[in-house]
Amino acid sequence: MRVLGIDPGIAIVGFGFIDKIGSKLVPVQYGCITTEAKTPQEERLKQVYESACSLMDRYKPDTVAVEKLFFNRNVTTAFSVGQARGVIILAAAQRGLPVAEYTPLQVKQAIVGYGKAEKRQVQEMVRMFLKLSAIPKPDDVADALAVAICHAHSSVLTNKINEVNRS
Amino acid sequence: MRVLGIDPGIAIVGFGFIDKIGSKLVPVQYGCITTEAKTPQEERLKQVYESACSLMDRYKPDTVAVEKLFFNRNVTTAFSVGQARGVIILAAAQRGLPVAEYTPLQVKQAIVGYGKAEKRQVQEMVRMFLKLSAIPKPDDVADALAVAICHAHSSVLTNKINEVNRS
Repeated sequence: MRVLGIDPGIAIVGFGFIDKIGSKLVPVQYGCITTEAKTPQEERLKQVYESACSLMDRYKPDTVAVEKLFFNRNVTTAFSVGQARGVIILAAAQRGLPVAEYTPLQVKQAIVGYGKAEKRQVQEMVRMFLKLSAIPKPDDVADALAVAICHAHSSVLTNKINEVNRS
Repeated sequence: MRVLGIDPGIAIVGFGFIDKIGSKLVPVQYGCITTEAKTPQEERLKQVYESACSLMDRYKPDTVAVEKLFFNRNVTTAFSVGQARGVIILAAAQRGLPVAEYTPLQVKQAIVGYGKAEKRQVQEMVRMFLKLSAIPKPDDVADALAVAICHAHSSVLTNKINEVNRS
């Protein structure tokens, strides 16, 4: 199963494709989509959408996992990130890909086993799970890989529960 | 000039096309796109996007005006509305249409001349401007027409300023 993890945003979208082979997680490709602040908003959304489409078409994920964010402070940022999430989820829906959402708390619990884990701990666990020589940069890329790993782990669990129920 | 006004949302998107002919405003078509709560989010976003695309292709606006919302209470709603706005703005960008944004305050000022006008006053002015026999329902449709009228008025002003600057 190939999972695409996404850390959405308008200036920078982190993405990470990982394969779950048995119980192993293998990184396939990761990086970020960036848009420039001076570009009009509508053009930036189009760039995010087109990049997301071409990544999905190239690396053909089976499922997409997106970080679900909560901001308490800045509702304008929530709108802006929401718009970027919208066009990425649209790209997934147009390809018939299921979309799962995870809060930062769920991601931390899945990766470190502790909801209040620090960012650095999560990143270090991402590096270890994927056997990378260094923590991927910028943070958005590590976050995208974290949400992909979270989904892969959750799917393992879901499958195990299904097996138990079946037996 | 044909303006498409949009009041974005995920359950209901109000839309209104109006023509500005000289100083007159003529309604072309208005209504709403609706999606069902039981439908998965990604499918709802796809439905909003596809409906927005087909409306734009059918009524060929020159420009799109979208209500810019601020929520103080519910950031989850902000995300959800933001996602719907994102796919609508994407549809506009893919057609090379400029997108303008107006806050509810700007809309009220443009329509009633008073930023704290009540919803009902705005709706009644929309009805009068467009010479409609009744206020369009639901509220989202009246709101979409209001933002379209706001943009048409703002463009009149912008053009007048440009004329003055030219002379």
